[in-house]
Amino acid sequence: MPLACQDAFDWIDEEARRRERAGLVRALRPREAEDGADGAGSLDLAGNDYLGLTRHPEVTAAAGAAAARWGAGATGSRLVTGTTALHAELEAALARFCGFEAALVFSSGYAANLAALTALGGHRDALVVSDAGNHASIVDGCRLGRAETAVVPHADPEAVRKTLAAHPGRRSLVVTDSVFSVDGDAAPLGALAAVCRAAGAALLVDDAHGLGVLGDGGRGAVHAAGLAGAPGTVATVTLSKSLGSQGGAVLGPARVVEHLVNTARTFIFDTGLAPAAAGAALAALGVLEREPERAARAREVASALYEGLTAAGLTAARPDAAVISVRAPSPEAALRWAADCRAAGLLVGCFRPPSVPDGVSRLRLTARADLSDRQVRAAVRTVLATAPTGAAARQETTPP
Amino acid sequence: MPLACQDAFDWIDEEARRRERAGLVRALRPREAEDGADGAGSLDLAGNDYLGLTRHPEVTAAAGAAAARWGAGATGSRLVTGTTALHAELEAALARFCGFEAALVFSSGYAANLAALTALGGHRDALVVSDAGNHASIVDGCRLGRAETAVVPHADPEAVRKTLAAHPGRRSLVVTDSVFSVDGDAAPLGALAAVCRAAGAALLVDDAHGLGVLGDGGRGAVHAAGLAGAPGTVATVTLSKSLGSQGGAVLGPARVVEHLVNTARTFIFDTGLAPAAAGAALAALGVLEREPERAARAREVASALYEGLTAAGLTAARPDAAVISVRAPSPEAALRWAADCRAAGLLVGCFRPPSVPDGVSRLRLTARADLSDRQVRAAVRTVLATAPTGAAARQETTPP
Repeated sequence: MPLACQDAFDWIDEEARRRERAGLVRALRPREAEDGADGAGSLDLAGNDYLGLTRHPEVTAAAGAAAARWGAGATGSRLVTGTTALHAELEAALARFCGFEAALVFSSGYAANLAALTALGGHRDALVVSDAGNHASIVDGCRLGRAETAVVPHADPEAVRKTLAAHPGRRSLVVTDSVFSVDGDAAPLGALAAVCRAAGAALLVDDAHGLGVLGDGGRGAVHAAGLAGAPGTVATVTLSKSLGSQGGAVLGPARVVEHLVNTARTFIFDTGLAPAAAGAALAALGVLEREPERAARAREVASALYEGLTAAGLTAARPDAAVISVRAPSPEAALRWAADCRAAGLLVGCFRPPSVPDGVSRLRLTARADLSDRQVRAAVRTVLATAPTGAAARQETTPP
Repeated sequence: MPLACQDAFDWIDEEARRRERAGLVRALRPREAEDGADGAGSLDLAGNDYLGLTRHPEVTAAAGAAAARWGAGATGSRLVTGTTALHAELEAALARFCGFEAALVFSSGYAANLAALTALGGHRDALVVSDAGNHASIVDGCRLGRAETAVVPHADPEAVRKTLAAHPGRRSLVVTDSVFSVDGDAAPLGALAAVCRAAGAALLVDDAHGLGVLGDGGRGAVHAAGLAGAPGTVATVTLSKSLGSQGGAVLGPARVVEHLVNTARTFIFDTGLAPAAAGAALAALGVLEREPERAARAREVASALYEGLTAAGLTAARPDAAVISVRAPSPEAALRWAADCRAAGLLVGCFRPPSVPDGVSRLRLTARADLSDRQVRAAVRTVLATAPTGAAARQETTPP
């Protein structure tokens, strides 16, 4: 066989063929500017822009103003030239709004979770107790750290208690999403905090899907649970969902933030968040503080979507925040369902294996505070009209 | 002991005291807008804005225009709503400029390296051969992947050859920085590529410090070595250094990019790069294509800094790109030297343990294409005038 025909990446073709046979090929579908924010006759219930702020004129103008004033990039690690007064202002505003002593901003929520887990749970003798439904960035943070990781059943404080009790005297960190991204259900934060307190363990909550939606004026799930600023408690948030921008942050006691500044590799060795993203997130936070009703409206829209879909016989989890997850009979049916929705002008997400922990495929709808009641009704109609056989819906779209 | 006085994070205080005793405390120093780009009487030789593009009016205007047109954030994973025509345009432009078939953009260079290493080297039976001087994001990518990692001595193709030969038949990936961030020296890419070809191994090059500085018109170190688009060859680049923005990209054969889209967790589970950052990077690339002399000027400035400093007796590595590393007699001396430079209006970086692999502390200066000869001479004068005893400089600042 001539060597020229061989290549170190030939194995990739075999994996591609395997994905194709399994019907699991993913491809990028670039959207046009007019596709966004429900333009051109389409309605976006697939993104995570829960408060409808990513296209808010104050927010986009703040992005442009920050780039003009501070430059298009941070130019270096935040420990060298990458920290500006704008970053510091955003950190102070996030900490104050969410009820924590201090905050530290990262280039992404993914990087914030890697930082928190490696710096707080990254000791060889430490134990990290992680919910089975946690986000990929938490799973990767556990892998990257040096601690032993114990994965416990989903949303099960008693399992956490038993795991901590089985490792007495270990420095322990319990980590959970506040709202799980697949089913949109909330973690039992109060019970988890009690278990942590009793065992002397720290609690890390990823509030990516809670900030802006849950709690007083959108202060998040941790604030709603009365845990903001509590000793031994740290939260991570993202600036790319409710705050319509890019980036992530860790919120906690000042000493935890100092510890991260000194030890977190995804902080020390990453370029700082671009000023445009910091400025946009700060402006979005300002809008939310001025218009706290946006948080309640996002929850209201989620409830209306859930009620409309389940009243017609679809199976969905009752949303604890702004994510509605609807069961599909198979991966193929889910894919076709989402495509039929898109053809009918409705963008929805589609979760299939291996992205779902239980192998059950789902349509994933996200509520947005800026949707009208009419838009919500139209979305429900489209999902029902395109529902596959076996989703138990089509026959019930017209109530008796 | 009252329980109320205890806290799950008390161990952090002990670590903080240890850092303080060792003189290794890092703290953030937010800069003001007027501090940047040599404003207010200061000269910035600490950032990685090699081409001086982060404050270029076309680049900052493009950031603002992209936010206005596409929104302040990407709103979701690039597989859901986070890919825009702007992302696709940037990817096509990067691939064309650097000479590769395809490109995939990430929210940071860190995320791009994690993706490339976990998706290309992440097989249980695979072997990753990594240079001892590689960047933290490569080290973390190796840790996160499932492959066995063999760390080889710095810039040593023969050690790579021996390691590959010791694992015949293994799917192997050799990974190296093109320009090492601490000493600014270049990897022996041609020799590494020959070793990889002979052994059937793939080659992954992090060209973060090469793009915009090395190669024809700044096409990067991989292009300069004649390896752009070569079979079995993949590069990662950052959008946050020469391109003045934020983000990273993987460049390679189309099948590699498709493989990353389908399998790379930091691609699938991260929010897409903010449109403002994508737009700024695309505009910076446009400026560089129109003004290719910026690349040569960055190298010229680096040479002038090196010549000026070593002629006066300082010890520095000859720069292969735009990073000049000057030896300091101790961590404390390096810290004081950098502080004295700052007090004299010159921003320089300071690398101390544990950020340096060999325990040697350094001042780190970066060249910028937009510096005048006068600014270069002033920078050299300041570094020499503030040099500590033992750096072998002060006595030679006035040549005989």
